[in-house]
Amino acid sequence: MQNIYQFQTADLIVSGKDSVDKMMDYVPRIKKNVSSVLVLTQPGIKDLGLLDGIYKQLDHETISVTTITDVLPEPTEDNIEEMYRDIKDKAYDIIIGVGGGSVLDAAKVLSVLKTNDQTVRDMLGTNLIEQPGIPTILVPTTAGTGSEVTPNAIVTFPDEELKIGMVSPYLLPDLVILDPMLTLGLPKPITASTGMDAFTHSLESFISNKSNYLSDTFALDSIRLINDSIVEAYKNGNNVDAREKMIVGSMYGGMALTSAGTAAVHALAYPLGGKFKIAHGVANAMLLPHVMEFNLDAVTERLSIVAKAIRISDDNEKEQEASEKLIEKIKEWTKILDIPQDLNEYGVTEDDIENLAVAASKITRLLDNNPKELSIEDMKNIYRRLLG
Amino acid sequence: MQNIYQFQTADLIVSGKDSVDKMMDYVPRIKKNVSSVLVLTQPGIKDLGLLDGIYKQLDHETISVTTITDVLPEPTEDNIEEMYRDIKDKAYDIIIGVGGGSVLDAAKVLSVLKTNDQTVRDMLGTNLIEQPGIPTILVPTTAGTGSEVTPNAIVTFPDEELKIGMVSPYLLPDLVILDPMLTLGLPKPITASTGMDAFTHSLESFISNKSNYLSDTFALDSIRLINDSIVEAYKNGNNVDAREKMIVGSMYGGMALTSAGTAAVHALAYPLGGKFKIAHGVANAMLLPHVMEFNLDAVTERLSIVAKAIRISDDNEKEQEASEKLIEKIKEWTKILDIPQDLNEYGVTEDDIENLAVAASKITRLLDNNPKELSIEDMKNIYRRLLG
Repeated sequence: MQNIYQFQTADLIVSGKDSVDKMMDYVPRIKKNVSSVLVLTQPGIKDLGLLDGIYKQLDHETISVTTITDVLPEPTEDNIEEMYRDIKDKAYDIIIGVGGGSVLDAAKVLSVLKTNDQTVRDMLGTNLIEQPGIPTILVPTTAGTGSEVTPNAIVTFPDEELKIGMVSPYLLPDLVILDPMLTLGLPKPITASTGMDAFTHSLESFISNKSNYLSDTFALDSIRLINDSIVEAYKNGNNVDAREKMIVGSMYGGMALTSAGTAAVHALAYPLGGKFKIAHGVANAMLLPHVMEFNLDAVTERLSIVAKAIRISDDNEKEQEASEKLIEKIKEWTKILDIPQDLNEYGVTEDDIENLAVAASKITRLLDNNPKELSIEDMKNIYRRLLG
Repeated sequence: MQNIYQFQTADLIVSGKDSVDKMMDYVPRIKKNVSSVLVLTQPGIKDLGLLDGIYKQLDHETISVTTITDVLPEPTEDNIEEMYRDIKDKAYDIIIGVGGGSVLDAAKVLSVLKTNDQTVRDMLGTNLIEQPGIPTILVPTTAGTGSEVTPNAIVTFPDEELKIGMVSPYLLPDLVILDPMLTLGLPKPITASTGMDAFTHSLESFISNKSNYLSDTFALDSIRLINDSIVEAYKNGNNVDAREKMIVGSMYGGMALTSAGTAAVHALAYPLGGKFKIAHGVANAMLLPHVMEFNLDAVTERLSIVAKAIRISDDNEKEQEASEKLIEKIKEWTKILDIPQDLNEYGVTEDDIENLAVAASKITRLLDNNPKELSIEDMKNIYRRLLG
């Protein structure tokens, strides 16, 4: 366990069924007078009608609303800089991001671009953003990344085949609205991969070398909530209770990873995103059971605690057996949720394995959190298990 | 469960053994340039050397430090207004409150008095404070009130025999330092009453009509941590692990009550503080088992969840039996921790019972959260059980 640890999150979190329809009740607490709002989203989200409740809330003579739907999945530097050029000379009181992790990350970055004389590149790294941004409201429409409560944003650099993060408390939003109703229509594969992404955040935070009392609370309750609801949310997307548990559990995953960090699953996932465009959640979900099997002997006790928390084991069972049951449970989910298990489908071949492992081995920020050291050979073996 | 619910807390929480010795590492995140600091505390805390680490952190040529030790236990309006007159014309960049709930509450109120053209009386009630205060750092030296993460402050009005609260997000601090080392020297009776106060916050939040996913997370983990450590912290005050679990558990109690509110235990406790000067934590601890017995039939399921969370029951046991086991556990703690059980010792007699019950019945803000309605007669009966 970490000796000294910290917790920081969104200023105000409002959660519950139809909470988006009360948004304006909370806005005065983050910004007194609002006359101009930028809504950032993607076309699919607008087409699904997920913005209707927000537009209704903003429907006042005195509020002008601009909507930008240009956020790309896993947004690139160019994508963000282009959107910034569009809004550079306009004044907004608030930016509202409505979408999955890509949209929320983009909203966070645009907010600080507006108030800092810095480019996206200047901000990459930890604590390099100079000033707070303009107030942001983040409204997730998936239950996965936890981006709504992390001080992180990920930017893709296609030429370098890289994804690079920026980390700063100024990326934390002023208001988060967690409305499960916005996630009812999520397609099954997205429910599955984003849900397992959230589970990965929590499980990796729980076994991280930087785990602590605060991160453990969020990690374990996230795992409990996801265990209670992920299969039901996948099979019956209209179950509001299951969707609510997923969206709260996913937010807790973001809180856990903010405090304890993620580890080898994430380190191995990033290179798959950079070169092969595998969505972050899918890559995490694919890698999770294999990395946990590799980690097993170093985290037997921790995994047994998780197994007990979700009641697939009890106090009478040996830690070894309890932890193995947990890994079996994860594999079971992988099957039930139809998580892809073959990197070939994404164009990865044996010839790519060396480069993937070398790229992953450079992400020491995350590998240092892993309870067991991974050699290049270990990483190659893990990737190979996903080669059909 | 509450339909729409919210969570808001301190901007940044730093926790762990000796975290107070790293305070200045975190201060730039809440205030860039610090040249003048007000430390607010009580004489006993200063005498115990609990400020030494903080003074060492502030020991720079460029920082001037003023210390005020005048905070009374359960501070009165006059006490706070007098301290305010002393600091009115001086400029401070930060107020650091070091102490129990009384000191933390006083620091919160002084912070907003400095920036608002309002008196203490003007601020009583909900959301009546007009402007944010000057930045505050709260450093608890007891594990009980959770005041470091609540938007509340309680002020005593001796003439009216009343305690009245102010509630405002502007009372939330910018930085919380949770250092278990500061609680090692807590006298046994304070460890007991403040610890049971924290437990009361969490249990009342868990059974509150306003309980929700977010408050449940903090309430249950608070209960787990306190269950793991309260008897050990009482018997062996130097056990740092037990003290750390208590101080984190107590903070979670504050987070839970901020989201879900407390209920009848607190409503019945306030009149005992106002007229008979019974410390808030002691009054809560005395009343807790009796109010829970009264509530039992309305909260059987919820109490059984708590019993399972602390492993005094399991999934095979009936809810009724599990919930009774929890009440037995609370009574057992009351004995082990030597919680006072006789209101006579504080000067309360049968003649006072009517007035106490009438006073409690007016605290509808809290009684409305209670899962079972209390008549005046019910309240009198509960008080009578504490008349030796």
